[in-house]
Amino acid sequence: MSAEAPHLKIKIQLYCGDEIAMGPGKADLLEALAREGSISGAGRALGMSYRRAWLLVDAMNRCWCEPLVATTPGGAAKGGARLTPLGEDVLRRYSELVEQAAGIRDGKDWAALRGLLREMPKVHQKEEV
Amino acid sequence: MSAEAPHLKIKIQLYCGDEIAMGPGKADLLEALAREGSISGAGRALGMSYRRAWLLVDAMNRCWCEPLVATTPGGAAKGGARLTPLGEDVLRRYSELVEQAAGIRDGKDWAALRGLLREMPKVHQKEEV
Repeated sequence: MSAEAPHLKIKIQLYCGDEIAMGPGKADLLEALAREGSISGAGRALGMSYRRAWLLVDAMNRCWCEPLVATTPGGAAKGGARLTPLGEDVLRRYSELVEQAAGIRDGKDWAALRGLLREMPKVHQKEEV
Repeated sequence: MSAEAPHLKIKIQLYCGDEIAMGPGKADLLEALAREGSISGAGRALGMSYRRAWLLVDAMNRCWCEPLVATTPGGAAKGGARLTPLGEDVLRRYSELVEQAAGIRDGKDWAALRGLLREMPKVHQKEEV
């Protein structure tokens, strides 16, 4: 059990049909990809398999009007990848959404709720079912 | 596959230790409970087992300084349940957080992103792995 203090998580997901076109995991992957310069490197940096990282990139590239990631052929070992201008724009705007939503942490409602939460949950009672 | 238009989902979860003290599912349950007057009725209204509904109520009651739900003994069939004043306050404030965060839907970033999303994802390409 973690000793983490009570906190608030906000998850923003953009859907295209039934697929998630952008969300926290895909945004992290785009950031890692911009740093690492390849899908395999980005996956490694996030502790994610190449296959998993590739599938996330493929989903993004199919959900937006143009690809967010451009790849250079060469397979997992040699191939490079970079964000397209659209990829950079989408990542920046998604980060803006996340930042705006995070503003609720500064309001009176979260302050009040935070004050009403226990530091840790009470021990589980015997189930009454 | 749904034909739902591109959309944005926002999920707000309040954590106490490793447990979710409030989130979309628990807020729905509190609302149903206020309407139905019992855990079993609320569970039924949401297509949730009594056991599942009871566990969610129990988690909430252990995460906050006082219980959010007060139960009248009598088992699944006869027992009643209602929100405590704290339960009403927490639900109201959580709904405020949700509403404030939903304000990002009115901004320029979501409008721009919405315009860049396809109506439906492109068909899956042959995997390159």
